[in-house]
Parts: sequence; structure tokens; C-alpha cells
Amino acid sequence: MARSPAIALVSGGLDSCVAAAIAADRGEVAFLHLNYRQRTERRELEAFAAIADHYQVGRRLVVEVSYLQQIGGSSLIDPALPVPEGETEGVPSTYVPFRNANLLGVAVAWAEVLGARRVYIGAHEEESQYPDCRAAFFAAYNRMIAQGTRPGARIRVETPLIALDKGAIVRRGVELGAPLHLTWSCYQREDQACGRCHSCRLRLDGFARAGLPDPIPYC
Amino acid sequence: MARSPAIALVSGGLDSCVAAAIAADRGEVAFLHLNYRQRTERRELEAFAAIADHYQVGRRLVVEVSYLQQIGGSSLIDPALPVPEGETEGVPSTYVPFRNANLLGVAVAWAEVLGARRVYIGAHEEESQYPDCRAAFFAAYNRMIAQGTRPGARIRVETPLIALDKGAIVRRGVELGAPLHLTWSCYQREDQACGRCHSCRLRLDGFARAGLPDPIPYC
Repeated sequence: MARSPAIALVSGGLDSCVAAAIAADRGEVAFLHLNYRQRTERRELEAFAAIADHYQVGRRLVVEVSYLQQIGGSSLIDPALPVPEGETEGVPSTYVPFRNANLLGVAVAWAEVLGARRVYIGAHEEESQYPDCRAAFFAAYNRMIAQGTRPGARIRVETPLIALDKGAIVRRGVELGAPLHLTWSCYQREDQACGRCHSCRLRLDGFARAGLPDPIPYC
Repeated sequence: MARSPAIALVSGGLDSCVAAAIAADRGEVAFLHLNYRQRTERRELEAFAAIADHYQVGRRLVVEVSYLQQIGGSSLIDPALPVPEGETEGVPSTYVPFRNANLLGVAVAWAEVLGARRVYIGAHEEESQYPDCRAAFFAAYNRMIAQGTRPGARIRVETPLIALDKGAIVRRGVELGAPLHLTWSCYQREDQACGRCHSCRLRLDGFARAGLPDPIPYC
């Protein structure tokens, strides 16, 4: 019997690229991308396609979850709210309410149809200001999947980066030959990365800690 | 402090109408409807609007989750698969993979933005051939919500019909004055209910067990 494929959630960013590299290293992988009308949607979709081409992924699914913008509540998707620069206290304004639960819901539905048993997501606890990036959340999500899918589906979410810091993620990506030059992380711009938003700062800090130059352009 | 509203998932069908009636009986309620390009989408949306008007609901949200059709795997949303009539063994072909997890994901995201603490869904175990209609699934979902939402959000899914059979649901609806004449359950037709699909049979059986006539037209 052919091994069932895995599904990788690929946003186009650094973390999901490394998670996808780990999934691809272990076997056949299908790529899932979700558009939710975030500020840099077009650029992230471009990065998704380039990473999928790099891994010669045949099964790709791009879906619209624009209801996240209808619902609002996040500076990542609401043009009226400013994207914070630098450190913030508590849950950041870029937090999209219940985003990972929604993204994983799509991935698990697709997994059930494809017969896939693993869903890879690049979340890590360094972003644990976001409640839905913590290991305890994914453990609870897996218990919920076991109850809510058909008998024998045996689908699990895998979080291979959960305990890594951004420096270790960069190093893991480089070890696996992940195409980090094709990724996009900036929350604000689509031509050159701003270098100032929370996501750019985390990324730059990761490359610095790994002792490597970031291959993407900054303004 | 004003009491926070509840959210009711209102498909336009009988069960969600009774669940919404219970929510409305307890306080302010916001209505959420999801289109996923099911066969009878237009008719269900019409029923949703009529029920919302009946309860004079101000906060209404209608969102597209058409990715469920992109993903496929269900006769409810895939025109190539026949809708079964009568009883079936195991998980029915009308099962939409991981549907309730996806619908609740949207509702919980909205709840987090509105400050709502309760999400009402009309699921019941009589439909427990669907894995995501069982009490164990909702209990696991609530534990996952507690992990994946911001501290203090305290959102819970309420399943007031979970242990009721369809006869008891009809009686509960009538007791509360729920507008059952405005609901639509048929999986196949939009003008008159077919009376033969799984959903029509359950509904007709419910009215029969309650000893009441079903107020909607059948062919």
C-alpha cells in the first residue's frame, strides 16, 4: 500500500517553509495555502507557489478564508488598525482570533478526503503570545480531531518547530536545503521587507542568531 | 455591565432554529450562517433570514466557506455524488469532512471579536453517524477553545439538543414558539421538500413522534 501523503500548511513565510521541508524530507507532501485578505496576501501567495515549485509539489490547494477579514479584530487584516513595530505587551494586535484553529480545520477536512494522516504547521512557542501557537493548543486540537473525524482517519497535526527558537529554525532550514530565499515574512510590504514589523524583527533576529545573512531584500 | 451576547449557528434547518430559540430565550443573540455551496444553499439562506427577522436579530453574519466544496468528499456538496434516500450503514455520504469543526471555528473567531461567551449549535447525537455530532466531539472542542483563545475569553459551545431525539426537538421548538414553518431541511430540493432524503425522513419522523403536522410543503 502506498504511504499516505502529508499536508503542509504553507503560508509563504520562513517557519512554514521549514516545516514543509521537514515534511518533504519524510515523504510525499501536499501543500495548502489560505488567503485571508491579510495585507501581504499577493506576495505570500507568490512565495507559496515558488516554494511548491521548488519541491515539485503536485497536489496544491489554495482556498479563500476571507471571512476572517469580515470578522476582523486584527491589525494583520484590518487596514484601520496599525501594525505594531517592536515589542508589545500581552496578545499582539496582529493576533487573528482563532486563526490556527480555522486554518487547521481546512487542512484536516482536506486530509480526511485525501487520506492524509499528518498535517504540518510551522507554529512555535516563541510566538506564544498568540494563544493558538502553544503546544497545549495543538495537543487539545489533536484530541478534538480524534473525536471529530471518521473512524480510522487517524489524522494528527505535527508541529516540528514548536520548541525551536527562530535561530534554530533558520539553521534547521539551511540543513535541509529549504529555499529560504523564496520565503516572505513581512506583515507590511510586498516589494522589499520593512525590517521593522514584529514579523521582520523576529526573522532578522533568527538569521542573526544563526549567524547567517537573510537572503531576501530589505528597504 | 451588559451581558455578553450569544452566537447561534443558524443553518435554516429545524434543529438550528430550535437551538436559536433556546439561545434567544436566554438573552441577546447574534446569528451566524455559513454558505458552503451545498445543494440547497439559496433556500437555506432564505430560511436563515426569515428566522433572523422573526427574532429581530440585529447582528447577523453570513460567510462563505466554499472551500468545503473545493475539498469535496460529500454528496451534500458534490453534484457528482447521489444523495442517499433512506437508511445507510456507517458514515453517510452526506457527511462533510470535519464540517462542524470548521463551522465552529468561524463562530468562535466571531465570538472572540464580539466578546460573546456562548456559541449555540443544534447538533444532536441522533445524528451520531456523523462523528462531529457527538457529545464527545463538542467536549473536546471546548477544551481546545480554552487553549486557543485569548486569556479571559471564556467561550464555550452549547449543544442544548445533544441528547434529544427529533420528536423532542420538535416539541421543544413548539413550546418556545420557534418559527418552525420558516425552516428548511431538505438536502435535495428548494421549492417543496422531497420527503425522501435522509434529512426529510428524520424531520418527518420527528413531527410524527411529536404528534404534530409539519408546516412546510412536501411534493
